[in-house]
Amino acid sequence: MPRVLAGVAMLVWFGTQPDLRATVTAWVDAHQREIVGELLQTLAIPNVADDQPNIRRNAEHLRGLLARRGFAAELLETDGNPLVYGALTVPGATRTVLFYCHYDGQHVDAKAWKQPDPFVPVLRRGLLADQPATIDPASVTRFDPEMRIYARSASDDKAPIVALLSAVDALKASGLAPSSNVRVILDGEEEASSPSLVPAIGKYQDRLRADLMVILDGPTHSSGRPTLVYGARGIATVDLTVFGPKSGVHSGNYGNWMPNPAMRLASLLASMKDDTGKVTVPGYYDAVAPLTAEERAMLDAVPEDTERMLRTFGVARPEQAFPRLQDAMQYPTLNVRGLASSFVGAGARTIIPDRATAAIDIRLVKETTAADLVAKLRAHVEKQGYHLVTDAEMKDGSPDDRTRAAHPRLAQLTVLGPTTAAFRTPPSDPHARAVAAALTRTFGAPPVQLRTLGGTVPIAPFIEALGFPAVLVPTVNFDNNQHEENENLRLGTFFESIVTIASVLRM
Amino acid sequence: MPRVLAGVAMLVWFGTQPDLRATVTAWVDAHQREIVGELLQTLAIPNVADDQPNIRRNAEHLRGLLARRGFAAELLETDGNPLVYGALTVPGATRTVLFYCHYDGQHVDAKAWKQPDPFVPVLRRGLLADQPATIDPASVTRFDPEMRIYARSASDDKAPIVALLSAVDALKASGLAPSSNVRVILDGEEEASSPSLVPAIGKYQDRLRADLMVILDGPTHSSGRPTLVYGARGIATVDLTVFGPKSGVHSGNYGNWMPNPAMRLASLLASMKDDTGKVTVPGYYDAVAPLTAEERAMLDAVPEDTERMLRTFGVARPEQAFPRLQDAMQYPTLNVRGLASSFVGAGARTIIPDRATAAIDIRLVKETTAADLVAKLRAHVEKQGYHLVTDAEMKDGSPDDRTRAAHPRLAQLTVLGPTTAAFRTPPSDPHARAVAAALTRTFGAPPVQLRTLGGTVPIAPFIEALGFPAVLVPTVNFDNNQHEENENLRLGTFFESIVTIASVLRM
Repeated sequence: MPRVLAGVAMLVWFGTQPDLRATVTAWVDAHQREIVGELLQTLAIPNVADDQPNIRRNAEHLRGLLARRGFAAELLETDGNPLVYGALTVPGATRTVLFYCHYDGQHVDAKAWKQPDPFVPVLRRGLLADQPATIDPASVTRFDPEMRIYARSASDDKAPIVALLSAVDALKASGLAPSSNVRVILDGEEEASSPSLVPAIGKYQDRLRADLMVILDGPTHSSGRPTLVYGARGIATVDLTVFGPKSGVHSGNYGNWMPNPAMRLASLLASMKDDTGKVTVPGYYDAVAPLTAEERAMLDAVPEDTERMLRTFGVARPEQAFPRLQDAMQYPTLNVRGLASSFVGAGARTIIPDRATAAIDIRLVKETTAADLVAKLRAHVEKQGYHLVTDAEMKDGSPDDRTRAAHPRLAQLTVLGPTTAAFRTPPSDPHARAVAAALTRTFGAPPVQLRTLGGTVPIAPFIEALGFPAVLVPTVNFDNNQHEENENLRLGTFFESIVTIASVLRM
Repeated sequence: MPRVLAGVAMLVWFGTQPDLRATVTAWVDAHQREIVGELLQTLAIPNVADDQPNIRRNAEHLRGLLARRGFAAELLETDGNPLVYGALTVPGATRTVLFYCHYDGQHVDAKAWKQPDPFVPVLRRGLLADQPATIDPASVTRFDPEMRIYARSASDDKAPIVALLSAVDALKASGLAPSSNVRVILDGEEEASSPSLVPAIGKYQDRLRADLMVILDGPTHSSGRPTLVYGARGIATVDLTVFGPKSGVHSGNYGNWMPNPAMRLASLLASMKDDTGKVTVPGYYDAVAPLTAEERAMLDAVPEDTERMLRTFGVARPEQAFPRLQDAMQYPTLNVRGLASSFVGAGARTIIPDRATAAIDIRLVKETTAADLVAKLRAHVEKQGYHLVTDAEMKDGSPDDRTRAAHPRLAQLTVLGPTTAAFRTPPSDPHARAVAAALTRTFGAPPVQLRTLGGTVPIAPFIEALGFPAVLVPTVNFDNNQHEENENLRLGTFFESIVTIASVLRM
């Protein structure tokens, strides 16, 4: 759809449906308890991707929720976890939208949560730090927007599923049909990199045909404003291990003499970034194309919310590698997500450890491939004097004697599991433009438009294989502690997300 | 005793007892099974210092073993674990020697051991790497010197206790009395820094009077030759934590922007040492006095065994901070004994962690105090732009909001538990000289003499409070995996240690 026509279409819509926001908001207000109840029920089913019995309980439960709304709902079996699928065909609709969400969640470290069980949701009056007390949802007659539900997947990604179902309910109750045919696909392996999505296309091609994929995942811009995202970064995860003596040795008997792998790993990591946080691995940013004027304008229009974010996270100053968060998102990352060497705390022993490992994740942008960045990282490690141990040189999880004798510095760099590419849809795509127009109409102002999400939705190969464009409509609060303990969902943001999704349904 | 007299005394001893080595060796050969049996029995009692019921079982067992040799044996109760004490008075003896060993052991990470239980000793034909199969000790009629016992405290420090008892047995069987009154004190809290030793002096002063303390702990020089040590390094343990966001945040949504505490900790650690391994914290080595010519001669006489040690540990090249291991021992260390930040491995999550911690140990030499080195370390961290968070600025284990808002870089440096000073006895001390002479006599060559042991015996305050000199006679194999999983004892070295200790008993 050309620009001018889109403008015309907007005027028409403004004329006929000025009150979608008010209509849906009123319905949500009147049905808070049912909506929250459905969410709590959904969160109570554990959903770590490798917990197959519970994954299936989730899938069956969600199929039931779709069927209850009149979707032709089924489980699409794969070699991994089942996909939950639903289809709602709208008479006269000329566009088909495929909504993608995922029903699996990140692993949990239950001890770290401030509640007995991450899969027994609790309600608090606000942020955990300010409102540690929990309240019984059954005792609440009206949910305050500041209230939060704490549970694994509260935000990532079960809330959007329930919000989508509620949006369908709200439209139906108001006598409004979606303007597009609706397809829903719920992935059960997103946090395990969605291995079954692409293979599913061969088997279920007919069901997966659409004009646009709308991915409901991730947090809105920190301003809380409706947000539309044209892409997402990819990811590769890498373990970097530096080896020391064959087994840990007494730090007194050999301290000052035996090379310490933890200290060497520290130096190696330190060599990879400068003091501002910029990656110093040669060529790391080379592939990233400079932004066009239009792209820069899109970044400039993103509201600044640095002060609030810093306050929320308790950080006085962000890294100085890039001028703003939005600029930082346009580049690949090199993030140390974990460190381990021997023990810290109660079990600590006075040794020079046998090894030290950094768990690293690399976020990719559209222009960078995992293979290229990993190759650059390997070259950098080698340049620091390390021999990178091959699998053939390993014996029982440690470099063999010959390799040990040959090289004074030994490291291993392992790419874990499959990597996920980035994706990016041009803002000029007509269906993407229609989503932007619908949100602009409903909320009376353009959404925050992001060229790329910082995070990863591991469906870039799926998008590519399907052959139609995709955008993300992230809907949850930015401070949701996603992927961490005490993941939470701010209810005011959740309720408003129902309006956002209803707007997309009516685009 | 002046030098000349010592020389005369040596001649006399050579004349009267040329065959102490042969006599004791023959007795050990004939009694291998009983000796090893007693050791296995002793190792089968778990001995982590905070496991009080088992600690008491150890103490009772050892008291029994002393009593069986005619020692006046008793448990000296303290506010912590009991000390096991034994006294054997020799008619006509003019010198009293207090032997010190410890019966507690380091914590165990049972999963890391290549045997079901570190407290169920297993026997192997040699080093685990070459001889993974275990053999039943009951099936062995003659123990090969290369055989090894694998168990917690096999080397550190139960073997010396059993060797001392066997040495007493061997002398008795040969009709030889010790030349000194013998006192034995067995510490049950050495791996927990021996908090009860100094307080025990007030209560048990009479029992602890002696002319010389002989500490039986630690590995011999790697050559395996009899070894006499005049001091030991002290230790301070420190945790250094760098703080990031209040809780871990999504590495995609905030990567390239949110400061990463694991990366910052890496940079901070890297700033503390140069590429050779030399500490670059200003002033760290300042207090260390240059060696005198005599001290340098003692160091020079220590046999070089670098190649063998490197081969054993599987390291191609030691650190280059000091010319030799013996030089390295004369300086304080800064050793990263553990690293932790979020998770590595199966539980790893793609986040920017909330904190990263390095567990550090600092080995002290006689001239350096823990307080001074820690103060220099603190100053260095501050110089790298960090605010060191005080206890008052912490809330629920994390810096409070005000502190977070005020400082872009936050770290915490905590000294753990009590620190232990170094000690050093001058080689000119007459009793120390008598030990050197006895070992020279028995083995036909001077022992390897070390100015200081690299490790720590946490009894420097005990030695100081007792007011008489102390030396160490370490007796176990250097590659014993002390403090680590698969700790072991080479039986040939163990059997010879009985001769070494008999020699000291007869000095």
